[in-house]
Amino acid sequence: MTDNVSTIDVGTAYPVAGLTLGSAAAGLHPSARRDDLALLAWEADAAVSAMFTQNTCAAAPVIVARRHLNDLQPKRCCLVNAGFANAGTGEGGLQDCLQTCTWLAEHLGCSSSAVLPFSTGVIGERLPLTRLREALPGLISSLRPDGWAAAARAILTTDTKHKLCSTEYRTADDGRVRMTGMAKGAGMIRPHMATMLAFIATDADVDADFLDTSLRAAVERSFNRITIDGDCSTNDAVALIATGRGPRINRDDVQFAHVLEQLCRTLAAMIVADGEGATRVMEVRVEEGRDREESLCVAYRIAESPLVKTALHAADPNWGRILAAAGAAGANADRLFIAIGGVQVYPSCGADEAVLRARMSGARCRLTVRLGRGQAAATVLGCDLSGEYVRINAEYRS
Amino acid sequence: MTDNVSTIDVGTAYPVAGLTLGSAAAGLHPSARRDDLALLAWEADAAVSAMFTQNTCAAAPVIVARRHLNDLQPKRCCLVNAGFANAGTGEGGLQDCLQTCTWLAEHLGCSSSAVLPFSTGVIGERLPLTRLREALPGLISSLRPDGWAAAARAILTTDTKHKLCSTEYRTADDGRVRMTGMAKGAGMIRPHMATMLAFIATDADVDADFLDTSLRAAVERSFNRITIDGDCSTNDAVALIATGRGPRINRDDVQFAHVLEQLCRTLAAMIVADGEGATRVMEVRVEEGRDREESLCVAYRIAESPLVKTALHAADPNWGRILAAAGAAGANADRLFIAIGGVQVYPSCGADEAVLRARMSGARCRLTVRLGRGQAAATVLGCDLSGEYVRINAEYRS
Repeated sequence: MTDNVSTIDVGTAYPVAGLTLGSAAAGLHPSARRDDLALLAWEADAAVSAMFTQNTCAAAPVIVARRHLNDLQPKRCCLVNAGFANAGTGEGGLQDCLQTCTWLAEHLGCSSSAVLPFSTGVIGERLPLTRLREALPGLISSLRPDGWAAAARAILTTDTKHKLCSTEYRTADDGRVRMTGMAKGAGMIRPHMATMLAFIATDADVDADFLDTSLRAAVERSFNRITIDGDCSTNDAVALIATGRGPRINRDDVQFAHVLEQLCRTLAAMIVADGEGATRVMEVRVEEGRDREESLCVAYRIAESPLVKTALHAADPNWGRILAAAGAAGANADRLFIAIGGVQVYPSCGADEAVLRARMSGARCRLTVRLGRGQAAATVLGCDLSGEYVRINAEYRS
Repeated sequence: MTDNVSTIDVGTAYPVAGLTLGSAAAGLHPSARRDDLALLAWEADAAVSAMFTQNTCAAAPVIVARRHLNDLQPKRCCLVNAGFANAGTGEGGLQDCLQTCTWLAEHLGCSSSAVLPFSTGVIGERLPLTRLREALPGLISSLRPDGWAAAARAILTTDTKHKLCSTEYRTADDGRVRMTGMAKGAGMIRPHMATMLAFIATDADVDADFLDTSLRAAVERSFNRITIDGDCSTNDAVALIATGRGPRINRDDVQFAHVLEQLCRTLAAMIVADGEGATRVMEVRVEEGRDREESLCVAYRIAESPLVKTALHAADPNWGRILAAAGAAGANADRLFIAIGGVQVYPSCGADEAVLRARMSGARCRLTVRLGRGQAAATVLGCDLSGEYVRINAEYRS
């Protein structure tokens, strides 16, 4: 995930023609009076694609959003709340979610199925419907093209900072396409959630099925290549809106798909860097696998090994733990190669420990593993495991 | 793993006729001058069986012990060292291990392949051969029938206590069979025998193939049902020696297999209870799965979830994390049932939080999950995740 991302501006959010964003405080978030509702709205001619968690105990909003996307009516908005996941809430939670969509649709003058709902927060508690309903008029009146930063802050839970990035690129026939995205991951404040939400908008004029194909490919190589604690949430979702106000994109346009992937990678890296208790990012690059699945399997095994993660936290070049994790995933010891920060450690050749420690002490550390079996490579981003992770998740109570 | 284990005496070690144990300090262990070599010795007519890690980067002693077991010569002893895993050491490490076996065999007057080597400790560093060789005479002279406790202490690494248990049972024709075992664990514990070593001896007179069948069945339901951190080590091994000085056991004797399984379960539970930084054990019981694999998969997902483990550490009845882990493993939310310490929490029925906290505050907490899909059940033992785990693994090179 270190390919050219120079075209992506981190921390900025260029307005996307045809899209407005709003935020409001509904008193859903436990710790303070802050905005905890966000709304992204667009016109009926936009194309929309979304991907959701694979967790089979998916939250009510995931069930409803999937259902609404399957309905052929145009979509008009994404409604996001922080504070309550609306997961594990059964039929009642489903009705709460549908009710919320209906209220918002009445305000916007659209069908209920034009609303895509998203939630993040505590699992198992019902949404405070009255407070939510009361906040809707203010939420709608706050909609504006430059509302990205406020919306990005409203969807946060345990994150320590909001995550935004943006880009504008020139097409072959000199058009300019804008693409802006925001995401939330896991940080500190309330322990229950490791939910990832991301919303991306572009002014490109893209067919819905090409949008879908591009999103799936980009997510596979970005959000689906990160791990903080190996836990898979009930609420994860990524949505992509193409408003169609900008240049027309043909379905053989590799540039659009490429830029989308870079933007997703940038957001994914921002989520990992802000992982609960994380002090540094590890980029696990596995090469020479027989196929992608093998390389990915070894990469995840390393990135999720608590022993590798604690060694990274201590900047301890204890490569035996990397070897053990690779072997647990089936790597052949006789063909294995391991490098830390570009310095070979296995087969052992007496690398200088001080050099290795220095390579592990930065904000980002690259672990390279070669399997000696084929040509397939895969990269996964993870982070270290700190006492702070345990403190966040054990010592605070919900 | 809560079946009747009343016949197993925890913490004791009845001598087993025909087996002697010794220990010695070779200066291999980093922290202090303590015994770090152990030897179990027996006569040529004993039957021996062993199982090893599934890690494909297996340590040199695992490779050598497997090779020696395949050779049809009688086995005579197990040599165990702590401090160095002799893994990731390549051809040189293999030669070191073979050399050590040769030196010991010369002292004992047996063939080199009669020695089964075992190591645990740091990966990637070569054994200090000279110190090891010098310690062998003292090690051999320390052999005695009641050497279990000293040997059990000599094999420890990050364990906080040694692990011994013992039993004597009466056969149908009024014979008495003794069985005693010791184990070490602490980190890198996951099924397929992760960083753990266990040695069990019995005076029973058992055919080698029945011994093997019994050991495989017992390990599958004991050491292969525990997890501390999901990491699988390069060095795990379980060895079982039947000296043949006691009653004859027929191959249709279910009692022998049953007692062996109880003894293995007891040792496995002791390993989990002494997991790195662990303050309590969780017993994850998954019922009503379609098949055993499904139940096991859900049980492991829960037992290894960092969010469930940190909640357990805080005695926080945050059942949303259990739901999310079960869903990540494919459980059907509409059929799912979850109880903490016997109290239903999902579907939610307003269980008293103080009661749940109390159920989670003991040394052992049972989580029950029903999948509503079939009849298959599985139980996995895990432990909590504490700041101490991070401290141990970020500060100590293991």
